Amino acid sequence: MTRQLEVLEGVHEVVRITEPYKFASRSFKKDNTVINIQGVHIGGDEIVIAAGPCAAESRDQMMVIAKSVKECGAKILRGGAFKPRTSPYSFQGLGESGLKYLREAADKYGLLLVTEVIDVSQIYLVHQYADILQIGARNMQNFMLLREVGKLRKPVLLKRGMSSTIEEWLMASEYILKEGNQDVILCERGIRTFENYTRNTLDISAVPVIKKLSHLPVFTDPSHGTGIRDKVIPMARASIAAGADGIIVEVHHDPDHAKSDGAQSLYPEQFDEMMKELRIIAKAVGRYLDQA
Amino acid sequence: MTRQLEVLEGVHEVVRITEPYKFASRSFKKDNTVINIQGVHIGGDEIVIAAGPCAAESRDQMMVIAKSVKECGAKILRGGAFKPRTSPYSFQGLGESGLKYLREAADKYGLLLVTEVIDVSQIYLVHQYADILQIGARNMQNFMLLREVGKLRKPVLLKRGMSSTIEEWLMASEYILKEGNQDVILCERGIRTFENYTRNTLDISAVPVIKKLSHLPVFTDPSHGTGIRDKVIPMARASIAAGADGIIVEVHHDPDHAKSDGAQSLYPEQFDEMMKELRIIAKAVGRYLDQA
Amino acid sequence: MTRQLEVLEGVHEVVRITEPYKFASRSFKKDNTVINIQGVHIGGDEIVIAAGPCAAESRDQMMVIAKSVKECGAKILRGGAFKPRTSPYSFQGLGESGLKYLREAADKYGLLLVTEVIDVSQIYLVHQYADILQIGARNMQNFMLLREVGKLRKPVLLKRGMSSTIEEWLMASEYILKEGNQDVILCERGIRTFENYTRNTLDISAVPVIKKLSHLPVFTDPSHGTGIRDKVIPMARASIAAGADGIIVEVHHDPDHAKSDGAQSLYPEQFDEMMKELRIIAKAVGRYLDQA
Amino acid sequence: MTRQLEVLEGVHEVVRITEPYKFASRSFKKDNTVINIQGVHIGGDEIVIAAGPCAAESRDQMMVIAKSVKECGAKILRGGAFKPRTSPYSFQGLGESGLKYLREAADKYGLLLVTEVIDVSQIYLVHQYADILQIGARNMQNFMLLREVGKLRKPVLLKRGMSSTIEEWLMASEYILKEGNQDVILCERGIRTFENYTRNTLDISAVPVIKKLSHLPVFTDPSHGTGIRDKVIPMARASIAAGADGIIVEVHHDPDHAKSDGAQSLYPEQFDEMMKELRIIAKAVGRYLDQA
Repeated sequence: MTRQLEVLEGVHEVVRITEPYKFASRSFKKDNTVINIQGVHIGGDEIVIAAGPCAAESRDQMMVIAKSVKECGAKILRGGAFKPRTSPYSFQGLGESGLKYLREAADKYGLLLVTEVIDVSQIYLVHQYADILQIGARNMQNFMLLREVGKLRKPVLLKRGMSSTIEEWLMASEYILKEGNQDVILCERGIRTFENYTRNTLDISAVPVIKKLSHLPVFTDPSHGTGIRDKVIPMARASIAAGADGIIVEVHHDPDHAKSDGAQSLYPEQFDEMMKELRIIAKAVGRYLDQA
Repeated sequence: MTRQLEVLEGVHEVVRITEPYKFASRSFKKDNTVINIQGVHIGGDEIVIAAGPCAAESRDQMMVIAKSVKECGAKILRGGAFKPRTSPYSFQGLGESGLKYLREAADKYGLLLVTEVIDVSQIYLVHQYADILQIGARNMQNFMLLREVGKLRKPVLLKRGMSSTIEEWLMASEYILKEGNQDVILCERGIRTFENYTRNTLDISAVPVIKKLSHLPVFTDPSHGTGIRDKVIPMARASIAAGADGIIVEVHHDPDHAKSDGAQSLYPEQFDEMMKELRIIAKAVGRYLDQA
Repeated sequence: MTRQLEVLEGVHEVVRITEPYKFASRSFKKDNTVINIQGVHIGGDEIVIAAGPCAAESRDQMMVIAKSVKECGAKILRGGAFKPRTSPYSFQGLGESGLKYLREAADKYGLLLVTEVIDVSQIYLVHQYADILQIGARNMQNFMLLREVGKLRKPVLLKRGMSSTIEEWLMASEYILKEGNQDVILCERGIRTFENYTRNTLDISAVPVIKKLSHLPVFTDPSHGTGIRDKVIPMARASIAAGADGIIVEVHHDPDHAKSDGAQSLYPEQFDEMMKELRIIAKAVGRYLDQA
Repeated sequence: MTRQLEVLEGVHEVVRITEPYKFASRSFKKDNTVINIQGVHIGGDEIVIAAGPCAAESRDQMMVIAKSVKECGAKILRGGAFKPRTSPYSFQGLGESGLKYLREAADKYGLLLVTEVIDVSQIYLVHQYADILQIGARNMQNFMLLREVGKLRKPVLLKRGMSSTIEEWLMASEYILKEGNQDVILCERGIRTFENYTRNTLDISAVPVIKKLSHLPVFTDPSHGTGIRDKVIPMARASIAAGADGIIVEVHHDPDHAKSDGAQSLYPEQFDEMMKELRIIAKAVGRYLDQA
């Protein structure tokens, strides 16, 4: 265990024991991890965009949205079939039929699929459909789930818990890496603070902090991070400018009738506009984002 | 759905939709829920104390501690066999042998046993040993786990997530109640704030808030809530003074060698002292706490 | 400078430089500071209660309320003449005529007067009327103001800033003590957290923390700390149970028509009830609270 | 008063009374405020950079740093002569001689000067030297100070309090605007959260939120916002990408020997690099940043 000395505001000296995690650490692996998923490289020079609805609601909805995000340059389709909801009386997702719609739409438009797995008992099922398994913020410290996805050979998108420190997040990733699965994408999705104008506070500084502490790719989620449609694009630009490897964003063709998160979903035209802006920002930081 | 108008500081008016939960609500059930577990009544006039080590470490340790807390008047033995730990490199608990030591010690000294279940896959196992199933703070929104314990007829101690609002906590309890299990004990265990002198900030105001919104019994956990041994007793007194129905507290006969949470565990003599003080406070609020 | 080692959750070791403040420290002065203000002793065995309206609104209002709180056993009258308000369009206080009403009411009923000073330019004026100068939460780091009240020989009630750590609060008190004024009463009034059911989160654990770090007396303010009338009494009880030396609380004879903070002001009958409960709790912790 | 309905996560409906402030509001003044200070336009198409040390330490120091930041394209020199410090034992600034060094360096290199005023009693003095008066985070709700700078005809840079909501910040600006001074620049400088890897959490989403609610220009301070040198540049890029009108940043020619904030000050070479990157990002959002 090495130690690192930091002085904070002259009052405390914090002796940070730097390695409560090992495999996640930049000191364990110097070079950036680049995850190759069927030819899409995450963590390399390309900025990769995942887009889609909060939840799969119907076959038609998924087809319309998948076509639209593909045409704008997204490489990954996002959407939930099992939704962890604060109230038991909210829409809980379509379950396996949702997975089928998502897979069919992804296949038809040549997109990868990222979707959430919320319990160990679903892993086998979701694994059959998804290209990337998402672990949501509420499950960031569901250690049994982390261990089990760690035994698979399928990439995992690990969202930061809404009140988790960056170090706790890296320790959560360590649960996966330690089991043998090296393909973890971290995703900052907003932390809980006193500010209540936005749904959460997207902690963009987590991006350069992660880049220093770890070799793992890092995304942000400006949709959950702000909860307000017209804040999503500025925060997407800011994320790429800060060094993020990609974005996961909610897009809906009819957000006023979305079954969840409509207020933070982009219209397809806005998503198109966002992609154009991100292409310019990407160049400014020595990266690129493919044309559709 | 009824609505209630609150004015906060003249700036916002918050129209609170009062019933995102139903079975947990005081408007659904006017009288306090009193849970009878083998003759121990939780939520009635008696203050009930759960005490024991953070983790079961050995048969001997459990016997020594169980004897000691029983003699001081505890009614419930606490202790973990499966420990959810931030780092995968920390002690993870003894597993089933831990459950056996806990059960044996509880039986020998006539105590009820509360212990944590951290995943759906363990429910059957833990159910065989425990009198009360604990859902930890990190699992407060593990909705699958909540639903599954909701199908049992065994009391559940549901800890508040460390960054969960009181309403989210009640909605989590609703997942359990809705499945048919009416025996839920809520437990405030400290929330995450900017203050870092204490490990968490024990939100004692949650006690009267819960008492107004819900009929369910509410405990506090001053050990995790403060993380500092000499703050545990004052916060235990404060909890009972504020109206809590009980306390769950860490006690260890040799905290300097505890495998986890030693720094916040009471010595047996301190626990004895605490119990005496709580007896007086209990009377001041019209309750009582049995002699050993 | 001495150093103290604390281990937090096994991840960090914090080397705390213990003396960014000196005169405020328990290591500088071992015995509790007891402040004698015209025969009222703050910080000794007696629990001392300050009560009154948020703001002085009229001569009549002050007379009615002062009489009422005196009869219930309060020793100090509280009330603001200069109100620091978030919006410039809110009621800003009566200014000097407010001070006159406060002083007259305090004198008539034999109460001490605590009132807030919000700027260096007012110190001389407020000093003429008040027995205790209050520094509000928003001014906790108004260092010029702290220094100036430090040059007086009049007790100061220093509220904790709503996002100040306990150490920052003690350093703020040090600005006063260092100038020669040793009579500082600290007052916990709620911190800003993510929880929004209550107006703030009253950090009762600050009471035992201050008692360990410092010799200064410590009060709490359950009115601002919760912002909800029916939470004030349980939190007042909890404060005394945790070791606070007193309470400052809002009481109004007609809260529905109060110009500020009506929703958190106690009715006189509630205040009377609270005083009775606090007398019992005080005994439980070896203190007493006088009959009126 | 108009009202606006927002639905947050299906649980609350928040009826937001939109005008606790008037002059600061976008509904009062549709067009962006552009402040012309001796030919430097803040809030227009140009991105404006303020740079310099945390504190003025000596004449030589100020000359070296002013020359360096001017050559890289800064338009404003920053530096403190009166430093509000958490501990009374920390360096408190050089006072008036600091102001003289700052003014002389600004004049010599054709820079505007922004410096902090921490009390009403200093306004006249600081006014003589500064082109822009800074109100620091700790004074955001020093309402007397806000009113007094509101009576001047000199631009004010108003930092967000470290635990202030965006609405409270706008209400603080209203105190200035209401007195007649229309030239207010808002500056996000990081909020206090549970995350302690960074000194504060720079809330970049405040930039688009302010742009929607208000017509006032908005800067960010990535130095105080992160507290860590190598996080300053990514967060500066992110701020401009999100729509900020400028940046205020700490630069020191010898940060290891700086009397305050050395750990977060950029080396001159890093500042030069940052300016180059910001020029590219500025273009991506339809703005520009002059060559030196």
